[in-house]
Amino acid sequence: MSPPLVPARLEGPIGIVGLGLIGGSLGLDLQARGMEVLALVHRQATAERARQRRLATHVSLDPAILRGCALVVLALPLDRLLAPEPALVQAIPAEAVVTDVGSVKAPVLECWTPLHPRFVAGHPMAGTAAAGVEAGQPGLFRGRPWVLTPDPPTDPAALDQVVSLAAAVEARCLVCPAAEHDRAVALISHLPVLVSAALLQGVDDAARRQGGGIPELVRALASSGFADTSRVGGGNPELGTLMARCNREALQDALAAYRRSLEQLERHLAQENWSALQEELRDCQQLRPGFL
Amino acid sequence: MSPPLVPARLEGPIGIVGLGLIGGSLGLDLQARGMEVLALVHRQATAERARQRRLATHVSLDPAILRGCALVVLALPLDRLLAPEPALVQAIPAEAVVTDVGSVKAPVLECWTPLHPRFVAGHPMAGTAAAGVEAGQPGLFRGRPWVLTPDPPTDPAALDQVVSLAAAVEARCLVCPAAEHDRAVALISHLPVLVSAALLQGVDDAARRQGGGIPELVRALASSGFADTSRVGGGNPELGTLMARCNREALQDALAAYRRSLEQLERHLAQENWSALQEELRDCQQLRPGFL
Repeated sequence: MSPPLVPARLEGPIGIVGLGLIGGSLGLDLQARGMEVLALVHRQATAERARQRRLATHVSLDPAILRGCALVVLALPLDRLLAPEPALVQAIPAEAVVTDVGSVKAPVLECWTPLHPRFVAGHPMAGTAAAGVEAGQPGLFRGRPWVLTPDPPTDPAALDQVVSLAAAVEARCLVCPAAEHDRAVALISHLPVLVSAALLQGVDDAARRQGGGIPELVRALASSGFADTSRVGGGNPELGTLMARCNREALQDALAAYRRSLEQLERHLAQENWSALQEELRDCQQLRPGFL
Repeated sequence: MSPPLVPARLEGPIGIVGLGLIGGSLGLDLQARGMEVLALVHRQATAERARQRRLATHVSLDPAILRGCALVVLALPLDRLLAPEPALVQAIPAEAVVTDVGSVKAPVLECWTPLHPRFVAGHPMAGTAAAGVEAGQPGLFRGRPWVLTPDPPTDPAALDQVVSLAAAVEARCLVCPAAEHDRAVALISHLPVLVSAALLQGVDDAARRQGGGIPELVRALASSGFADTSRVGGGNPELGTLMARCNREALQDALAAYRRSLEQLERHLAQENWSALQEELRDCQQLRPGFL
């Protein structure tokens, strides 16, 4: 990670491709800063609702809206970002800075570096519970990390523009290699989804096998601890699968590390080694504040 | 689980042994209902603070305070509950109803059934983040489950009194066998602690092994999803160990079910079977609302 960067003057107009949670929130914040925002969306109904919500200055289904943009933000889901439509790629001006908001960075760099000379890979880390054209909200990025993962071919002036974009919406800009970003998000974002999903399935499965009053009882007694631990496992299945698919190797390594830790705790339990278990749980108690 | 029970008239005075989160909250609510509450605590400093906070009508270090109580609530930590001091046992009137608030029920029944003829095992399921004499608060039990696990020797009139106690503090009374309670809490309360603790340790361990900027990056990028999934794993280590110790077999079974689910998800990942992974995650998304 690099120290905070000093933002250059942000140049417009700014193009946004996709007006979901990230694209819509960006559109609202940038317009509030006096920028002109030109948005490209896929469907007529989305365009109409986006206009009603004033998510951009202009909204169009025609990629030609991106002509004249100084900066284009690809706020698309990972699958569409990694298989971009040729009409989109052709419509982006060659001199524009291009960035994305995908949650995995190495495959995005691999796909987009050959497609555009001024591409900068980025990942604003803001909430993902809501999605779609209704999700955009002002102030989403304030104080949240916005990771940039330039590689050697990245144009430094283009990088400066994306730093300025993040600064304009009051995000905290972090710069690191794409591989480090991907390993970090595998650990703190993609691994928790599987850990939490397995809890939901494991509990449901065990309760059904045990039968009697237990399936009803687990539901009646589950409290805030279970709700919190199971939250991300009960999230959007398409998004969870897409992240796993795009970050498979790092996620497999993360799962291996997780299983080692779980097996260690299980061993203490099987051996009734209560002092060792208590020591491990104390270690966890001390680790957690570092992540908050 | 039985249908809601009709509470009998609650008789006092009520004795409370221990004025931590559960005992202190009970004392506040029962006094607000006009009951006389006589509390026994272990240390002089606790007694003084409990009197300042008016957690009971009278607070004493002398077990003799329990003489004359119609109902005695043992609001002690599991380890002290399972190894009760002889002076405490002797001070409880033979005709009083006695109940506890421990989070595992079979070992409590085994310990207390021979010690007192009118013992009823119970578990009010209220938040556990705070502890000690400062933790008690009014309204803690409102709308929360209060599980009772009578067994064949349990005196029905004594059970009625504990149902009335739960009703007096507006808890939702549930009745089930101790073994079912213990298996259910292993799944929805004790298993999440280990699942969540292993996440904290696994992430920390993997980040340190990978080195570079990753240990710093995982801490900078961890967001609400990681915070939620790791919350119960970063909780009180003594409490976590005590629960594991008193409910070991049910927790081991729960862990085995959990591992089967996790291994299934891992298999889909290794085989790049994305449609199967997405189906499992959709299943999780549909399961979760049943637990909220």
